[in-house]
Amino acid sequence: MKTEQPYLLTPGPITTTLSVKQAMLQDWGSWDADFRAMTAQLCQSLVELVDGEGSHVCVPMQGSGTFAVEATLATLVPKTGKLLILMNGAYGQRMGKIMDYLGRAYVALDKGDYEPPRAEEVAALLAADPEITHVAVVHCETSSGILNPVEEIAEVVARQGRRLIIDSMSAFGAVAISAKKVAFDALISSANKCFEGVPGFGFVLIRQSVLEAAAGNAHSLSMDLLDQWQYLVKTGQWRYTPPTHVVAAFLQALKEHAEEGGVSGRHARYQRNQQRLVAGMRQLGFETLLSDEWLSPIIITFFSPGHANFDFQTFYDRIKARGFIIYPGKLTEADSFRLGCIGQLYDTQIDAVLAAVAAVLDEMSIPDGTPAHVLDSLATA
Amino acid sequence: MKTEQPYLLTPGPITTTLSVKQAMLQDWGSWDADFRAMTAQLCQSLVELVDGEGSHVCVPMQGSGTFAVEATLATLVPKTGKLLILMNGAYGQRMGKIMDYLGRAYVALDKGDYEPPRAEEVAALLAADPEITHVAVVHCETSSGILNPVEEIAEVVARQGRRLIIDSMSAFGAVAISAKKVAFDALISSANKCFEGVPGFGFVLIRQSVLEAAAGNAHSLSMDLLDQWQYLVKTGQWRYTPPTHVVAAFLQALKEHAEEGGVSGRHARYQRNQQRLVAGMRQLGFETLLSDEWLSPIIITFFSPGHANFDFQTFYDRIKARGFIIYPGKLTEADSFRLGCIGQLYDTQIDAVLAAVAAVLDEMSIPDGTPAHVLDSLATA
Repeated sequence: MKTEQPYLLTPGPITTTLSVKQAMLQDWGSWDADFRAMTAQLCQSLVELVDGEGSHVCVPMQGSGTFAVEATLATLVPKTGKLLILMNGAYGQRMGKIMDYLGRAYVALDKGDYEPPRAEEVAALLAADPEITHVAVVHCETSSGILNPVEEIAEVVARQGRRLIIDSMSAFGAVAISAKKVAFDALISSANKCFEGVPGFGFVLIRQSVLEAAAGNAHSLSMDLLDQWQYLVKTGQWRYTPPTHVVAAFLQALKEHAEEGGVSGRHARYQRNQQRLVAGMRQLGFETLLSDEWLSPIIITFFSPGHANFDFQTFYDRIKARGFIIYPGKLTEADSFRLGCIGQLYDTQIDAVLAAVAAVLDEMSIPDGTPAHVLDSLATA
Repeated sequence: MKTEQPYLLTPGPITTTLSVKQAMLQDWGSWDADFRAMTAQLCQSLVELVDGEGSHVCVPMQGSGTFAVEATLATLVPKTGKLLILMNGAYGQRMGKIMDYLGRAYVALDKGDYEPPRAEEVAALLAADPEITHVAVVHCETSSGILNPVEEIAEVVARQGRRLIIDSMSAFGAVAISAKKVAFDALISSANKCFEGVPGFGFVLIRQSVLEAAAGNAHSLSMDLLDQWQYLVKTGQWRYTPPTHVVAAFLQALKEHAEEGGVSGRHARYQRNQQRLVAGMRQLGFETLLSDEWLSPIIITFFSPGHANFDFQTFYDRIKARGFIIYPGKLTEADSFRLGCIGQLYDTQIDAVLAAVAAVLDEMSIPDGTPAHVLDSLATA
């Protein structure tokens, strides 16, 4: 076991507390009452966090977040349905891929790398196509780091009588959302993002009446959320072997989430991380992809330095040697990289990352982080 | 954290070593080179353990073992294929359910609760139905605890030019199987059975040529083993977020598996556990469901005591209070319960379980474990 572990500045898995990891130092029988009580507590806490008591239920799903997204689309969008996917990055695109596998109808509003989908355009699309039954949106699209305007979208979707599915994988736990205020049929998230658990399962907060009417929709036994939920209700157990240790870690993570002040407390720290990181990086000449209005407190995309000496792998390796794992970019049109604000990161770590970036630029003989398009405009000026 | 943890006498999750659990006390970036190296090592070790070098590749799959089974059937049995499922318990039946979801053709040889499928019957079925392209068999069917005769089945399947899929979830790691001797296209297993890791992913050892020809078969993005493998080959990464901590625990478990003497060493301990457990239970009047020939070194089904005072939940709770979690039965026709032989169990634990069973029978005023059918035959004699 290494004593010095690098901090993860990524969109998950993230750096968790030692106490969260220590919760895994025990084995549980997944059939046993002790573990059933843990599952019940997990589900109840998550329903409460989304103000879903009486309307929504929690269905945990083994596997990565993508499994939970696929399970949700398959269980909730019937074979005769049609989905509008609001795309502005890899996760919206992935929903399209899922629908291709499912062989179910969908259209996409593709805003490219980072433009937000807006209520007016969604309203126009829905008005023009009455066959659309469901709309899916990614809450925080970590491809760019944008926080999409889920509230205004939910409003037009509800007004036009369609059903909303929110992929809140990277936002739930740190960005407030209430089922009492935002009308959604499903909100999907995972253990290892803003709740600061370890990876191994996702979960879906689903409107109970909608779930109950979803018989026969799912394409897959493993991913049938209705079957998963019915078994859970009947037995108190996960339908198939759960990642018991990961579940135990998540319960500890939920406890620490509450101790930090719940969603608002977690949001405040991440927001502070983001502002400190953006301010520091801008001082080093870096530029964010997004204007401040659209920056999430989850992850930030920076343009890569335009200087000829810049090479991402070298930059990554040298920053890693200083104790931080950063994240590559995912833009199709510009060189970029990403820095996460989530996980066990505080002022000390943010300041140390900024110092590491400055030192590595220096080592690579790059004067500052000024991106290519700025250097170009300076050259032509 | 409890200091006294009950031992799990179940078919998995099982009791793992402290060192396996301690391997989870670190966070990894799933994109990072350190974790990519861990994934590569995991896959290489598993291919070696099945003698699959040059013929088979390892494709890990997030989620429970059932996810890996569904992914394998969907990826390998084409839409125009037809599967023969050899059923003698819940896991064979579950494959039928999966095929129902997939909407692909299958027939079953259903042997009921515990009879083994034999080579001659499989040969006859294959000869009578040339449309059958694939055969699926459960290696150790933990419903009864039977170790199915996979070798003789593989032989007739190969002789008739069909393809074999083995669900070796509960056997691989403790029951020797070699791709050089047993012709299979896929062998499916999971982290938390005989390898003594913690639950969170499964894996499939697949014949590479067959996998490469499987484009377009899968019904699901998340479960497309070809796509999963191609991404792994291209990037060294899991396609979607892996359960990083569970993977780390598995690597430690693999190390301890090798230290115990690999498959033969692990088999020897489990076999010893089984024999000690069966002998001790028989001394207490209990009867095994299966004759010795079919008993696996994985888990054993015992008939419940026929005495009127017996109540499974009370029996379970009292044995749990003495530090052991046992497993309910899964037979349709007779009351039974199961005791596992796998995980961190040695003579000391086996003897203590036997003592606990004896003490609990005593507490419940049950003279011994004699099952109902024996009591009945004594009464009518």
